[in-house]
Amino acid sequence: MSTVGKPITCKAAVCWGAGQPLKIEEVEVAPPSAHEVRIKILYTGKKGLQCTVISYADGNDLAGICHTDEYTRSGKDPEGLFPVILGHEGGGVVESVGEGVTSVSVGDHVVPLYTAECRECKFCKSGKTNLCGKVRSTQGQGLMPDSTSRFTCKGQPVHHFMGTSTFSQYTVVADVSVVAVNKSAPLEKVCLLGCGITTAWGAVVKQQGIKGSNVAVFGCGAIGLGVISTSSVVGASRIIAVDTNPSKESWAKKMGATDFVNPTTLPEGKRIQDYLVEITDGGLDFTFDATGNVHVMRAALEACHKGWGVSTVIGVAAAGQEISTRPFQLVTGRTWRGSAFGGVKGRTELPGLVEDYLQGTLKIDEYVTHHRKFAEINEGFHDMHAGDCIRCVVDMTE
Amino acid sequence: MSTVGKPITCKAAVCWGAGQPLKIEEVEVAPPSAHEVRIKILYTGKKGLQCTVISYADGNDLAGICHTDEYTRSGKDPEGLFPVILGHEGGGVVESVGEGVTSVSVGDHVVPLYTAECRECKFCKSGKTNLCGKVRSTQGQGLMPDSTSRFTCKGQPVHHFMGTSTFSQYTVVADVSVVAVNKSAPLEKVCLLGCGITTAWGAVVKQQGIKGSNVAVFGCGAIGLGVISTSSVVGASRIIAVDTNPSKESWAKKMGATDFVNPTTLPEGKRIQDYLVEITDGGLDFTFDATGNVHVMRAALEACHKGWGVSTVIGVAAAGQEISTRPFQLVTGRTWRGSAFGGVKGRTELPGLVEDYLQGTLKIDEYVTHHRKFAEINEGFHDMHAGDCIRCVVDMTE
Repeated sequence: MSTVGKPITCKAAVCWGAGQPLKIEEVEVAPPSAHEVRIKILYTGKKGLQCTVISYADGNDLAGICHTDEYTRSGKDPEGLFPVILGHEGGGVVESVGEGVTSVSVGDHVVPLYTAECRECKFCKSGKTNLCGKVRSTQGQGLMPDSTSRFTCKGQPVHHFMGTSTFSQYTVVADVSVVAVNKSAPLEKVCLLGCGITTAWGAVVKQQGIKGSNVAVFGCGAIGLGVISTSSVVGASRIIAVDTNPSKESWAKKMGATDFVNPTTLPEGKRIQDYLVEITDGGLDFTFDATGNVHVMRAALEACHKGWGVSTVIGVAAAGQEISTRPFQLVTGRTWRGSAFGGVKGRTELPGLVEDYLQGTLKIDEYVTHHRKFAEINEGFHDMHAGDCIRCVVDMTE
Repeated sequence: MSTVGKPITCKAAVCWGAGQPLKIEEVEVAPPSAHEVRIKILYTGKKGLQCTVISYADGNDLAGICHTDEYTRSGKDPEGLFPVILGHEGGGVVESVGEGVTSVSVGDHVVPLYTAECRECKFCKSGKTNLCGKVRSTQGQGLMPDSTSRFTCKGQPVHHFMGTSTFSQYTVVADVSVVAVNKSAPLEKVCLLGCGITTAWGAVVKQQGIKGSNVAVFGCGAIGLGVISTSSVVGASRIIAVDTNPSKESWAKKMGATDFVNPTTLPEGKRIQDYLVEITDGGLDFTFDATGNVHVMRAALEACHKGWGVSTVIGVAAAGQEISTRPFQLVTGRTWRGSAFGGVKGRTELPGLVEDYLQGTLKIDEYVTHHRKFAEINEGFHDMHAGDCIRCVVDMTE
């Protein structure tokens, strides 16, 4: 029996309030309105942090990485919007489309995009950024572009999250927030292109000059490892991985790091940036922060070589935190920049990344350390915190 | 009688200690050693601030602009090095050269360079920066490259300043710290290329994309006005000048500003960056800080357009002060950078700037509001503080 045009009842992980664990509930997912797409989510990525750990108010369900729009929103609304269905890294199949949808069709394999690409707004047309203004404000409010929700649970509307809400067996997204990918690619792998791996890839390939340069990467989670891997592919001459967790050394080296530095093992009082400047004859050509820690962001900038070093902030800090440095660091030629979703235009570029994966030039399998059934979405995050989880893929069908 | 190879006794403005006024003294200037050049200084630029106002320890004799190396040094040695002969913006004639000097000859009209260019060090050869490592450490110690001084006063050695010490009728500089310019150019004008005007010019022309873009310039001193003027020449579509001094509006507009905003006249609680974002449909493509105020630097960054805005720090803050912002500003596509001496390689590029001046495409005359005799070097800085002095040229021969 076709579900087209009808509400679908399915399971979703609902967060009922700040600090609450996710709860698997029956939810009703309304059919897509015009320019919307309803997706059967098959797999979703998960880093291990959840509502219990970092509240939605801070915009983080994922180690502080990637929640750009929610971070914005959180500054204005420190109380957060609940209830909500989180999740922003997923893969699924188009179940039905609303009026006017031309970019994807029923049955397409798709990845939802928390960074939309409308190709019509000032941002999209600028040619200078992957940020898109089209659905930003409603997305920040946890709503669809018409300012309503497609989710209902126990008679109550439930907020969307980052325009994606992949912790549900069915979700509805704007047609500018989804991309179809090659059906021959396994969705349980390419779902991870919805966030971390793409973010890391873009942060490196969209930065001119990495080839032949030395690079330091702060933080060896999925993003940091992706930066290491992509820097290696692009041809960086030296890649120094920095992490306080010694178990990350083998991970970093497997991905292409030439050096591993654990800042906690430096002599007392020796700052990581000073140490890196010493061992690189003046500093790094490029550094990347993949931690979300504002103190690390400063160290990453100050580890850059005078005259030309460029530091890229990828991690997103908790609401209200600030970065600082002496302006002299900039005046003497260092550049501080950042990127969201790696500067990648999702609809335009994700299909190519899937092809790269299929051809073996983009690593994805290597990041998947854990698998969970949907029913276990709340479980197993203690071991993830221990640092041995890079990416966990949740099977939404189980 | 030739002075070559002999000490020269002349007048210089000596600062005997932090917070002391400059004192015109008889000093003895030793002949140049190998790879050094002794210059008869004819004109020196002066902004109006002196030892009395901001101590050498902070590295500022000029409204906090440009004292890059001294600022570095000041962090390590907050007590400063005294006595010292300040001044870093000058023009003169080569009186004699030491052994091995090939780049300038006796009689050449020259401009001393506080940013050296040796063409041999890692920095010079990088092709990425105008900073040069050759004489940096001794320059920061107020000494010549052999770690001694060429100045003696009352039997006591006197420190050099920024490798230039132009507040003396004769000075000695390293041969990598001086450039010969077209003799048909008036030295009382092109002496100003030794700092402010070049700094402003370079900050704009070395930044890609100014043409057709909107620009905001914070601070309308000589540097800010130079940024405005150069942005206009390069073809910026809109140039918003920002200054708290209303008398700067006519200056800014004369130099090419299309708008003038006085932050003190905004409605209570309205931040300048928010106002600028409003009136520019999302923010500026490029902003420049020419104030040296860390709070203004933040405003300049945050006034940038999401996705692509680039903010350049030109002003140097007082020692120990820090800039800060939310990292979100960077993650959403803004870039924070800086430049010293405008990124200009002095020996390579200054001759071309002098030609531009002679051909009328680079303004210099317009910045000169005051003239002083050397004996008056301590006078008249109260009116300069009132904001009606852009640049004062001091005639060292009077």
